[in-house]
This record gives sequence, structure tokens and C-alpha cells, in this order.
Amino acid sequence: MTIKDIAKACGVSVSTVSRVLNDRPDVSDENRRRVLDFIERTNYIPNNSARDLVRTKSDSIGLVVRGVGNPFYTDIIRAIEQEITAAGFTLVMQQIGESDDEVKSGAVMEREKRLRGLIFLGGRFDYAPRDLALLNIPFVCCAYSNRYGTLRAEEYSSVSIDDEKTACQAVQLLIDSGHRRIAALLSRTDDRSISQLRYRGYTKTLADNGIAVDESLVLCADSFDIRGAYRAMKRALAAGTDFSAVFAISDVMAMGAMRALDEQGRRVPENCSVVAIDGLEVSDYITPRLTTLCQPTEEMGRRSAAILLDLVQGRGENRQVILSTTLRQGCSVRAL
Amino acid sequence: MTIKDIAKACGVSVSTVSRVLNDRPDVSDENRRRVLDFIERTNYIPNNSARDLVRTKSDSIGLVVRGVGNPFYTDIIRAIEQEITAAGFTLVMQQIGESDDEVKSGAVMEREKRLRGLIFLGGRFDYAPRDLALLNIPFVCCAYSNRYGTLRAEEYSSVSIDDEKTACQAVQLLIDSGHRRIAALLSRTDDRSISQLRYRGYTKTLADNGIAVDESLVLCADSFDIRGAYRAMKRALAAGTDFSAVFAISDVMAMGAMRALDEQGRRVPENCSVVAIDGLEVSDYITPRLTTLCQPTEEMGRRSAAILLDLVQGRGENRQVILSTTLRQGCSVRAL
Repeated sequence: MTIKDIAKACGVSVSTVSRVLNDRPDVSDENRRRVLDFIERTNYIPNNSARDLVRTKSDSIGLVVRGVGNPFYTDIIRAIEQEITAAGFTLVMQQIGESDDEVKSGAVMEREKRLRGLIFLGGRFDYAPRDLALLNIPFVCCAYSNRYGTLRAEEYSSVSIDDEKTACQAVQLLIDSGHRRIAALLSRTDDRSISQLRYRGYTKTLADNGIAVDESLVLCADSFDIRGAYRAMKRALAAGTDFSAVFAISDVMAMGAMRALDEQGRRVPENCSVVAIDGLEVSDYITPRLTTLCQPTEEMGRRSAAILLDLVQGRGENRQVILSTTLRQGCSVRAL
Repeated sequence: MTIKDIAKACGVSVSTVSRVLNDRPDVSDENRRRVLDFIERTNYIPNNSARDLVRTKSDSIGLVVRGVGNPFYTDIIRAIEQEITAAGFTLVMQQIGESDDEVKSGAVMEREKRLRGLIFLGGRFDYAPRDLALLNIPFVCCAYSNRYGTLRAEEYSSVSIDDEKTACQAVQLLIDSGHRRIAALLSRTDDRSISQLRYRGYTKTLADNGIAVDESLVLCADSFDIRGAYRAMKRALAAGTDFSAVFAISDVMAMGAMRALDEQGRRVPENCSVVAIDGLEVSDYITPRLTTLCQPTEEMGRRSAAILLDLVQGRGENRQVILSTTLRQGCSVRAL
């Protein structure tokens, strides 16, 4: 059935049917009603969908997001969506849990949705070539790199900050303010994620400044969420751990720590300085405003999408992009 | 037209057509080109896909999320995803902007992804029957209702709180603490959204307590985000508006207001009490912890998915569910 058949059956012009299908306002209520009723009765589907179905190449780009609750991802997702949509592609998003395998999810999606390319938002840092054998389409790792993996540079693309270097800057900022007993609040020290990378920046900077790592100052929350960070800080305070500053690997974790400090009567920054990495909007509205190194989230999303579109359209090679962070000076650090 | 007709018209074998339709590699470029051109010219729909299209045999459930940056949605989305996946269906998510039309997006998705059902997370409160004529599948409005619309109860499903009643509870809580000059921080008073509904609860509760509405205490941010709320509160403080308490229609807006109050040297709750609606996790970690009426986000997502699955599998009727909120007592309200 074509648009002409509908027009004939409804006793209206072809352009009227077209206007109804495109949801344009310049149609009388009666004609709209008549066309929509007919369409509903006959389950007519506009031609372009039919064409989509048989076209071998879909226009879908997949986005696999790991760790749905991460507020850090919001701006990145928006930027990716805008870029992909503006290029005439459709973004199909899938959220997976902290412990799910993003590559396997992506591979299933590739087949089910006939994807042209994939963006992974959050994932493991240790891919080996055989992990990626299931993927037959280009992909970009967004907000993380393959730091612990064995992929060759021409085998993957990524857009991220230099996690270790950024952690060095954060810790150096505390040292420059006179702090030497600096706690690190992280998930784990050996999980091959941003937690391990940022922990490396912490230990390196302490070493560079002649400060020995004190194991009791390494607070492992074993999670990335606000509650886990709160609990880890509570435990440290209950144990009487002595420190004048905290480097938190994320804004969310810093906020959890600040609540625990507050409950213990330790004011930030008067009794304890706090610095973090991420630059969430909300951490700029809390009291005291958090001092943090901001990731360029919008640019991260935009660049990831641009690289993938280049790859999909055969215009570019795989590449790894490292973006810079910027310091957002809040009120959570005090000079000793 | 059958696959045989295509084979005949293109001068190829039936199995070649089949291979092209199934996107198999073992076809010469020339034959693939010929078949695809013919299909595109004639708008042929493969039989099985055509059947799927009209009988909706896919396993996909669509989720249209309006207002991507809303942290309130995180838990709801997770609950919906778990419920849909556990039932053996696939959740396809699409995010749309504040001003996009969720029904139109849903209708396009219905056709393109051959959906079995739709969940709208955030949307207009004023659907008329003809707005929904384009949808041929069951749908559930999650976190909002059709309060200002004209749909009959059997035409739609929804899971939400009673926004007006919840606002009444929040404002009554302030009045019971001795406050009478209570500011309302909202988006707009006439936008047919939760903002208008919660504003109605505000005016009703004031009236019930013999307090006249003072226009200068109605702070319209014209947006739902933290920055807009911050600016609206800044303006009110700059204008010297006199109030002892603020009812914010959302936690995010309350956090923006608290920043503005803090910058003006007005401490919460000593110099100004604040109460809100939503119950975000993060607002329980700020100082002072926000007193707020919590929406049962997980239950909201779970119930929305369960109702939709019932509808999709022909096991249930449309229904509207109203869930209760619970007070989370923080430290942001002081008795006068």
C-alpha cells in the first residue's frame, strides 16, 4: 500500500496524507482524523521504515554505558547524542551494570541492532586483542583508555584524560598548600580502573615530594558510589586515622567523605582539606564548594562521536586522544 | 510481491535474494546491488519483517526519557531495565530534550524499532486522545500523570505520586514549624507540568491555613535545573524579598537555592528553612542534609514496567497508580 492508496481510500489529496504523516499543522481536523483512523485500521507503515528494514546498512550507532548511576556521564551522553544525530545517524543506548562485560554487550548489540559503530562509556582498561575479536565494527572508548591492555594503537580509539597525571596535579595542589598527611579515597588500588591509575598518581606525587606512603591513609571503599565513600571515611575517622587533607578520586566520593567529616565535627576546609577529580555541576553548589579538576565532558563526548563517525564513514584511522583537565577553585582547600 | 517475484524481476535465483535480505556475504556485489535497487524502488518489505511489523513480534520495549540531566531518573531507569530484561524483553532507550515531543519520538521509535510497548519517563500532563492516535502499542506514563489531559482512564496507564498532595505536605510541614512567610521555588506556575501541580499544592495549603499568597514569594526559575534555581533565589535575595522558609519543588532546585542563600550569608536552617520533594541520594549528603519528601523511585520504575508487561502480554488493563512519598527528615528545617 502506498500513500496514493491511502489518499484514494480516504478521499483526500496525496499531499494531505503526507502532511498528516509528517504531523504538520496545516490539515483540517476532519481530514487528519480520517487519515489517522484509516492508518490505524490498516496498520500502514510509512515507506521509509520499510526501506530501513531491507537496507543492508543501518544508520545505528551503539552507546554502551557502564555504571548507570554515574552523574559524570550526563553531559557526555548529551554531547554524543547531539553529534551522532546531527550526522544523520541514530544513537541506540544500552546501560550495563558495574560488573557486566561491555564488549560482550556491544557485540550482541552489534548483531541485534545492525550497528555501524560503538562507543563504550566507561569500561575496562585491559583489553587484549582476543577480547575484541567479537566486534566487527569500529569502536571508541570514551572517558577511559587501554592503559593496562595490549591493543596496538591502530586497533582502537579512545578519548580520555591522563588519569595518573591529573591525580598528580590534585595531590601536588595539596602539598603546595602545606599538607603532608594526605589520605587517598578510592575504590581499590589494583582494579585496573581509574581507581588504580589515580592511585598511581597519588603515590608518585608523594614520592616525588619525599613523602612515604602510609598504608593507613589509603582508604579503599571498594565501590565508586557516595555511600561507599562515606562509609570508608567513617571507618578511617573511627580508627583515629590522622590526616590534614583528602584526595578523592571523584567528586561523588569527595561528597560522601565530606558528609562523614561533617558528622565527626571536622569542618572542611578548616580541619580538613578536600580535593577531587571530575568537576560535576552539583559539587559546585555544595557548601563548601569543592575544589576539583574538571574533565572536559562535553568535548570528550563530541570528540568520541567525531572519531567514530570518521571511522564509520571511512574517513579516518583509529586514534587515542588525551584531553586536559582544568582546575575549578572551590573553597575546600586551606593552606596550612 | 514475493521473494520469487523479486528473483524473477532481477534475473537472479531465489536463494540469492534470500542471501541479500539476510545480509549474508556470499553474494556478488553486482547481484546485491541489483536486488537492493529493486527493493528500494518498489518499497518491498520482506515477508517476515512485514509480519513482524504489523503483528509486533519483536521483543523490544521502548523507553523515552525526557530531560536527560535529571538525576531523579537514575534509579527509575535501573528498575525499569531490570524488570524488562528479567521478563525476556529488550529495553531500547531514547533521550529527548526538554522541549521535544515524547509522543512523536515514541511513535517514530515504535515503527523503527518495532516496539511492543512504550514507557515515557517525564512528559506532558495534558494529552488529548488525538495526540496518541499515532501510537498503536500500549504505553505507561512514568513519574507523571495525565492530570490536565482528556484521556479516559481505559486509554492510558500511569505510575506517579500525587504531586499536589505531596506539595501540600511539604508546605504544611513548614507551617507546622511556625513559618508563615514561605517562598515557593518552581519553574513556572502555568506550564501544565509538575511545577504547576506542586504550585497548586502550595497555594491550597496556604489558603487552608489562612495565609494569603504573596506574589513576591513565588520565585519562577523558568527551568528545572540547579543553575536556574540558584539564579532565581539570587534575584529574590537581591530584591530584598522577606521570607523565613522556602518550599522548592525539587531537590535539585533546593540545592541551587541553598548555594544562593549561603552566598548571601543566610544560613540554613538558622536563617532560612528549606524543604523539597524528590529524595535524591546526593541531597542526603550535603550540609545541612535536605529535608525532603522522597518519591519511591525504584517502585515507580518496577510498577511501570510490570503494568506495561501485563498490557503487552494481554494479561491486564490500563490503570493509573498513585504511590506514596515518605518524609526524609534532614536538618534543613528549623521550628520558629
